[in-house]
Amino acid sequence: MIKKFLDTLIGEPLPNEKSCHEKYNIPFGLAIMASDAVSSVAYAAEEILIVLIATIGLAAYQWLGWVSLMIIVLLVILTTSYIQIIRAYPQGGGAYMVAKENINLKAGLVAASALLVDYILTVAVSASAGVAAIVSAFPNLGHHKVLMAVTIIIILTILNLRGVSESAKIFSFPAYLFIVSMIFMIIYGLIKYSLYGAPMPMIHSKVVATEELSIFLILKAFSSGCTALTGLEAVSNSVPNFKEPAQKNAKIVMILLSSLILFIFGGTSILARFYQSIPIGYPTVVAQIAFGVFGRSFMFYVIQFATATILIMACNTAFTGFPMLMYTVGKDGYVPRQFTVRGKRLGFSNGIVALGFVACILVIVFDAKTHGLLPLYAVGVFLSFTLAQTGMVNHWIKVKEKGWRKRAIINGFGAFITVITTLIIAYEKFLHGAWMVIIVIPVLVYAMQSVKKHYNSIATQLGVETKDLKNFDLNKKITHIIVVPIASLNKATLAALQYARSLSPDVIALNVSADNAAIDRLKSRWNELNTDILLVTKYSTYRAVITPLLGYIHLIANAASPSEKITVMIPQFVTHEGIGEVLHNHTGFIIRESLVRNKNVVVATYPYHLEEEDD
Amino acid sequence: MIKKFLDTLIGEPLPNEKSCHEKYNIPFGLAIMASDAVSSVAYAAEEILIVLIATIGLAAYQWLGWVSLMIIVLLVILTTSYIQIIRAYPQGGGAYMVAKENINLKAGLVAASALLVDYILTVAVSASAGVAAIVSAFPNLGHHKVLMAVTIIIILTILNLRGVSESAKIFSFPAYLFIVSMIFMIIYGLIKYSLYGAPMPMIHSKVVATEELSIFLILKAFSSGCTALTGLEAVSNSVPNFKEPAQKNAKIVMILLSSLILFIFGGTSILARFYQSIPIGYPTVVAQIAFGVFGRSFMFYVIQFATATILIMACNTAFTGFPMLMYTVGKDGYVPRQFTVRGKRLGFSNGIVALGFVACILVIVFDAKTHGLLPLYAVGVFLSFTLAQTGMVNHWIKVKEKGWRKRAIINGFGAFITVITTLIIAYEKFLHGAWMVIIVIPVLVYAMQSVKKHYNSIATQLGVETKDLKNFDLNKKITHIIVVPIASLNKATLAALQYARSLSPDVIALNVSADNAAIDRLKSRWNELNTDILLVTKYSTYRAVITPLLGYIHLIANAASPSEKITVMIPQFVTHEGIGEVLHNHTGFIIRESLVRNKNVVVATYPYHLEEEDD
Repeated sequence: MIKKFLDTLIGEPLPNEKSCHEKYNIPFGLAIMASDAVSSVAYAAEEILIVLIATIGLAAYQWLGWVSLMIIVLLVILTTSYIQIIRAYPQGGGAYMVAKENINLKAGLVAASALLVDYILTVAVSASAGVAAIVSAFPNLGHHKVLMAVTIIIILTILNLRGVSESAKIFSFPAYLFIVSMIFMIIYGLIKYSLYGAPMPMIHSKVVATEELSIFLILKAFSSGCTALTGLEAVSNSVPNFKEPAQKNAKIVMILLSSLILFIFGGTSILARFYQSIPIGYPTVVAQIAFGVFGRSFMFYVIQFATATILIMACNTAFTGFPMLMYTVGKDGYVPRQFTVRGKRLGFSNGIVALGFVACILVIVFDAKTHGLLPLYAVGVFLSFTLAQTGMVNHWIKVKEKGWRKRAIINGFGAFITVITTLIIAYEKFLHGAWMVIIVIPVLVYAMQSVKKHYNSIATQLGVETKDLKNFDLNKKITHIIVVPIASLNKATLAALQYARSLSPDVIALNVSADNAAIDRLKSRWNELNTDILLVTKYSTYRAVITPLLGYIHLIANAASPSEKITVMIPQFVTHEGIGEVLHNHTGFIIRESLVRNKNVVVATYPYHLEEEDD
Repeated sequence: MIKKFLDTLIGEPLPNEKSCHEKYNIPFGLAIMASDAVSSVAYAAEEILIVLIATIGLAAYQWLGWVSLMIIVLLVILTTSYIQIIRAYPQGGGAYMVAKENINLKAGLVAASALLVDYILTVAVSASAGVAAIVSAFPNLGHHKVLMAVTIIIILTILNLRGVSESAKIFSFPAYLFIVSMIFMIIYGLIKYSLYGAPMPMIHSKVVATEELSIFLILKAFSSGCTALTGLEAVSNSVPNFKEPAQKNAKIVMILLSSLILFIFGGTSILARFYQSIPIGYPTVVAQIAFGVFGRSFMFYVIQFATATILIMACNTAFTGFPMLMYTVGKDGYVPRQFTVRGKRLGFSNGIVALGFVACILVIVFDAKTHGLLPLYAVGVFLSFTLAQTGMVNHWIKVKEKGWRKRAIINGFGAFITVITTLIIAYEKFLHGAWMVIIVIPVLVYAMQSVKKHYNSIATQLGVETKDLKNFDLNKKITHIIVVPIASLNKATLAALQYARSLSPDVIALNVSADNAAIDRLKSRWNELNTDILLVTKYSTYRAVITPLLGYIHLIANAASPSEKITVMIPQFVTHEGIGEVLHNHTGFIIRESLVRNKNVVVATYPYHLEEEDD
């Protein structure tokens, strides 16, 4: 029944042969990448303003431009650096691969951990920001924001378990809707402002300066705004997914992407200043700008709808990236093998479910508040940027191909800038939540190493050389002693004893009871049985059945010679109905689980099937 | 580790031989019984006033007396009837026994269900009322009332799992403290009032009449006040626990008990009128009376303390009664056998834990509010009263001993009055929660019958006549086919194959994989192995391993002749550390659980033990 429900929800299983990929052309690739990279402008300007407005008051709008400019400079540097990675890793160079190959294994694991954390945060942040866009348009949905965000994540989890690749092209619609409507809003807004000046702002709130402007404040605002750049690395990870010429197409997409971020992020920063948007949660800064530009007209709702859908699409990219990275790391043995197995719809189901689950928890804990989640976000992104760039420097030094010095300098500068940015973010955001990520990443690295060590240890202990296979004596003689625990003489125990006896002459029936009368009854019935099988009875002073039973079996097992093997045959009657499962002592199960931990003991269950009851 | 913790919490196991009982003398027996029966006066007058004050306003105090008188008349009738039961059932006649023996089985089960529900409610109500007494003394604890009530129940659960009988005598202290201090308060209060009149009441609240006095209102108040009589049946259940002459002692205790209820309940009703106590939750009516009589002096706190402790003691009586009744009903096969087994401290642990758990849920759901729980309470109590009395009428008619007519009339009158009361309570309280009990009791009866039917069916199917034992051929020849599922050739699978081969010449190694390369690798390694064991490989199109594997095994099992038996030997490597358990696919476990449902298949686990990893 559960299986049927899951089949309806997730779809019928797909055969292995269906596993293939649609390749991206430029417009489609841009749409896919934009959903992650461009969508973050929906909250980046807001984050800068939160820092500045609360401290330097109205001067914030003036400084917003400068901070945005710093971020745009960083964007240009990163774009140049990442184009280098596209060139060097046509097979797709995620930070994990680049750092592992060019720095060392540990750096790779750190990058992997940082990326895994970021994928989870992408889902949590984007779902929360998407809900914020919806709530900005329809304020009375505000009470349900956690429920809405969790619902979005659950729906995405189910869609990804079904496999969404077939219809991925329809997903380019929200990305282009967002890009086009934002560009339209920026141009229209700039023209309108130059002609008519600013209308009344949507939100009336008294803004008071409480602090002097300082370099620390600017850095804090900068570190908050850096979230605009998250998702930028996506292109370099996906080079092989592009149509040929893949590298060239990927480069073009990368440049288009950066230009879009530049224009949209820069444009919203300027409009936020003109229209005096104030970050108060709901409506979002983007919603306030849209209101300033269009009033509460049709276009206002289009902007909110486009923002919400592109953010949901950004969630979705993490649902592709996270399971894929888990698979890549899992192939190397650093995460449990369950993450390397394709589910029945060919997606990496375990990774998808794990991502959805953890993201839901985050959304619930942080009450679907983007501002609470963002401090956790950027530090991991920039840490993986840094590792990728550093790895690239080593790469160019190693390969020493034509023009390697220039390339090493570009990536080196990228690494320098990103490490500085990482430190700024870690410092500025430490108390606001970055400490969690700073703790989680080493813990994840340690866990990954432990997993690998465990797998290695098992492989070594279980491994058999081919030459040893030839000499292995499969026909070695083993003397079997079979112990059958019985509570009474009934059809199930008799069948088990018969089965045991047919395997070995050495069978022991073992009874443990806290009731002397019951033991006597069993003995007298045993005497009726015409057998030479030994019956051992044990009186249990403390009423426990399992402990004395295990004690006796351990005793025999320890006394056995190397050529002897103890098999415990547990008679179990099987009822074919639900109620039966609950009504019987689960002694058999406990005995089995305990005995399996004992060396030299094989545990067998002898099932005796009862008929269905008639009602 | 868990075991150690439980041992510290619950105590070391006790041997069977320690099972014995301390017998009650009169003062001790009175204390034990009083905690349940007398404690309910702590909330009975309050319940009557809640009904009356809200409707007829200040006239309530006048009518409180009359309603109390009705209840006292009922008390006298019930006492007389129950003394008859003590006479007829010296071995302890609970409503279950009396109804089962004298009416029919179903009546017995209804009585048992009603009593089980009431034991649970006794715990929930008494714990909530005990907390109400504490909060009346210390109002700022009001926010923690649910936590306090749950803590009380958990502590009682643990104490009862340890076994409290040894020190039961110290439990007579709270009962006598309550009795003595209440009597003192009543006498002192009456004298004080006659000399000085009433002081300012503790609670100032405007009381407005909203309805005319009506017979329905009086019946409603009566049905609310009937909770004063809960626990009255306890003496008749426990006759064998009294010292000899048991019946005589039990009768004396019964009469003393009734007198105490009469005096304390009557006294508080009168004082509630004099001191104009208003039921508002906290402080309780008893607390308001105590304040009126003593002011906020030492004695006020003594009354609150005594009320709280006797109510906690009342909880405790349910912790004795519930598991004992589960045991009695379980011996007859109507509840799962787990409830008939004594735990390691000789208490019926499963019953104790079940009671504590359900009572905690009730306290949480009802927010530890006595008034919310009480409507569920009385209907079950009076239902079991009715059944016990009706059973007694049949009993006297059946035995026809000297004076049976008089006795039958007494019990008949008791049955008549209690059935009327049951109907009044069920009607008046239906919408306030009694409907739940009216639904739960038939459900429980049905469940009990299903359990019995299930056990009967199993006993019939498994049973073997002694004469058949003689003819059973334990040495019947069975041909064994052993299937060993393997994922690769390693030390664990080789050992399992070796073991299988030593049991039977017919061994099949079975491999299922979604990876053709892996299958080829296995085949070529298998060829290195010098064996005639058959290797069967299956390619899994849908990547599932378990389904094709089970399919193949079912195929063999269905084709097997009656003298052939299939054994599936699952190689399992056992790691002796926590992490190992998580990191491996739990395929073995799932296969085992699925195969056991298949006829003709024995499932065995062959454990291969890995060393501990060194760190």
